Amino acid sequence: MKHLSIGATFLLIAQVLLATLTYGAEQSPAAAQPPVIHPDRKITFTFRAPEARSVAVAGGDGLGVGPFPMTKNADGLWSVTTPPAVPGFHYYWFVLDGIQVNDPASETFFGYGKPTSGLDVPDPAGDFYSIKDVPHGEVRERTYFSKTTGAWRRALVYTPPDYDKNTKTRYPVLFLQHGAGENETGWTRQGRAQFILDNLIAVGKAKPMIVAMDRGYTTPNTPDIRQQNMQVAFSAFEKVIVDELIPTIDASYRTIPDRDQRAMAGLSMGGMQTLFIASHHLDKFAYIASLSGPMIRNDRMGERSQIDFTGPFDTKIAYNRMFADSAAFNQRVRLLWIGVGSAEPDMFLTSIGGAVEALESAGVKLVYFKSDGTAHEWQTWRRSLNDLAPRLFR
Amino acid sequence: MKHLSIGATFLLIAQVLLATLTYGAEQSPAAAQPPVIHPDRKITFTFRAPEARSVAVAGGDGLGVGPFPMTKNADGLWSVTTPPAVPGFHYYWFVLDGIQVNDPASETFFGYGKPTSGLDVPDPAGDFYSIKDVPHGEVRERTYFSKTTGAWRRALVYTPPDYDKNTKTRYPVLFLQHGAGENETGWTRQGRAQFILDNLIAVGKAKPMIVAMDRGYTTPNTPDIRQQNMQVAFSAFEKVIVDELIPTIDASYRTIPDRDQRAMAGLSMGGMQTLFIASHHLDKFAYIASLSGPMIRNDRMGERSQIDFTGPFDTKIAYNRMFADSAAFNQRVRLLWIGVGSAEPDMFLTSIGGAVEALESAGVKLVYFKSDGTAHEWQTWRRSLNDLAPRLFR
Repeated sequence: MKHLSIGATFLLIAQVLLATLTYGAEQSPAAAQPPVIHPDRKITFTFRAPEARSVAVAGGDGLGVGPFPMTKNADGLWSVTTPPAVPGFHYYWFVLDGIQVNDPASETFFGYGKPTSGLDVPDPAGDFYSIKDVPHGEVRERTYFSKTTGAWRRALVYTPPDYDKNTKTRYPVLFLQHGAGENETGWTRQGRAQFILDNLIAVGKAKPMIVAMDRGYTTPNTPDIRQQNMQVAFSAFEKVIVDELIPTIDASYRTIPDRDQRAMAGLSMGGMQTLFIASHHLDKFAYIASLSGPMIRNDRMGERSQIDFTGPFDTKIAYNRMFADSAAFNQRVRLLWIGVGSAEPDMFLTSIGGAVEALESAGVKLVYFKSDGTAHEWQTWRRSLNDLAPRLFR
Repeated sequence: MKHLSIGATFLLIAQVLLATLTYGAEQSPAAAQPPVIHPDRKITFTFRAPEARSVAVAGGDGLGVGPFPMTKNADGLWSVTTPPAVPGFHYYWFVLDGIQVNDPASETFFGYGKPTSGLDVPDPAGDFYSIKDVPHGEVRERTYFSKTTGAWRRALVYTPPDYDKNTKTRYPVLFLQHGAGENETGWTRQGRAQFILDNLIAVGKAKPMIVAMDRGYTTPNTPDIRQQNMQVAFSAFEKVIVDELIPTIDASYRTIPDRDQRAMAGLSMGGMQTLFIASHHLDKFAYIASLSGPMIRNDRMGERSQIDFTGPFDTKIAYNRMFADSAAFNQRVRLLWIGVGSAEPDMFLTSIGGAVEALESAGVKLVYFKSDGTAHEWQTWRRSLNDLAPRLFR
């Protein structure tokens, strides 16, 4: 600095400050704007791409039936207003000259095996997952080593309000799994599970509980996200949950390490994992819930290639024969909960509805929950958790 | 299901299973591949865009001097191998026909005011931030309401290993801030602060401490990320930290609520915020650290428009005159720590180096840390935290 004139120094300092304070701004497209959600739940999407030849927006279930082609104005801004969306969280992405890209103007959420743009359409009945002025629990990142996978893993653990104050209290545990292409962040980011539980616990509707959420894959958590999330290995994941995660949670938190105080639930692929794993470990779980999880007839789910497609749901052989003796099952399992969204594709409704019918005909006690008007999407699963959690550990 | 033939049912079930298990795959570009980092730290980037007319890759400091134009092969796959990168974390993005897009094959990190692709170049000396077989702390999401902003906020809180087991122990607290365009996730995702602290604590080099990380902006945490992160309001953030976050942390965790057991540090914009806030609240902080934070002469930082660009660093008036009486400052402040990367742009080196020289000439005691060969980037700040943390609360 001593070699510079005062004037040059002033300029340098001004440059430093401007550079520092606007460090984030320089890479943001100037006119990028997140989706505008109108009161009628139509959504206006915009994307600035003056050189593009075609831009469209598409999204997950519940957003609509896109892709919706967008039109360009004189400023190079593409836009479209889509038909009314279903309330709740929706993944979306732009298709720019045939390439899927995320929205530079909104947050990403892990879905479809990669970070994917998301938006949340307000729901007049969505108070149950809003952040309210009630005591809040915490979501904790727990690092642990898995011998099964030979790698470090990260579980997310919800601890209920006042967990750190009630230092003598022990709590039941819900193991809660995401769907295919998602990861351990799904339930708290897309699902808002922590706020659903805070709100239920605040009014005494749910028992205070710990919720453990892990990544439902056993491939290494490498920077190559294709490797992380595209392989399904139910047997290896079963080992992670039963031999590693349960002991880790029991050793690290004030749990009640007893099957009557332990539940497992999951959505879609996570629902299939739940039934698969629980069917081998009824000594570990007394509460079982499958949210929009296709129901399969047999127990050959250890590897994807072994899943048996050869018959309809058969209560006598499905899931390690755990339903074969319905009276014994009803006595041993305190809750079997099965849910689906009424607007899910027929194949889900048929698979799940058919299994529920077969199970009820065979005398298996269960709760069947239908989320009205929602598809294979997070709003179905937020509502599912809101119905399920109050029934646990009673 | 009863209306379907057995054959049709089989097909439906097969469809359901395949759809569910590959739910994540359908949206992934088939040949997307994350960057390949070679042993010589050259990096090969690829991006599939058969219809694009030009694709380039660019990145943050430390990646190189891009954008690097990419070339297309017959399959529509663009690629380029860039010169050796500096070890450590680097933001990067593709420029596709003039539009910045993220890499569909890797994770995003919040930087530049939006989710941005990132990669981590292995560092032979990077053991200090790797996940090791040592006791691990937790990173906790703490939800709290801010009257200053009228909105809910989320702080991330590192608690040291065995925090839940040593239920009588109280801990000092470091308040640790990210840089411009980033958010509260920066220090644990890009910075790996939790592993740096785990490793230091495991060998007794750092005292077990709590680390509180908040978003350095006071705009609402809305889906519009432009609104979240592009405004700098030091005075409002000062109120959040001092009047709201410190009391929240002291009420929620077993802290030692005393200035001698409280530190504040931040990087870049966060370093400026640290000096600004600490200079008004020496009754609250005994340890102060600015990591790559430009040093300004005066105290008119309440709003960006009021920052005074009119002179060089003046120890008599800078930062609320806290350095004016160096003997008094040295007695009151247990540590003033200032750091910079040796490869940062001249304007940072000049501003920070000039201020350090002026402060030392005026008799102010400080630690000046230079990270060798790193720029205005996370590797500088990982090393900075590794140097800083052992000096705290001694």
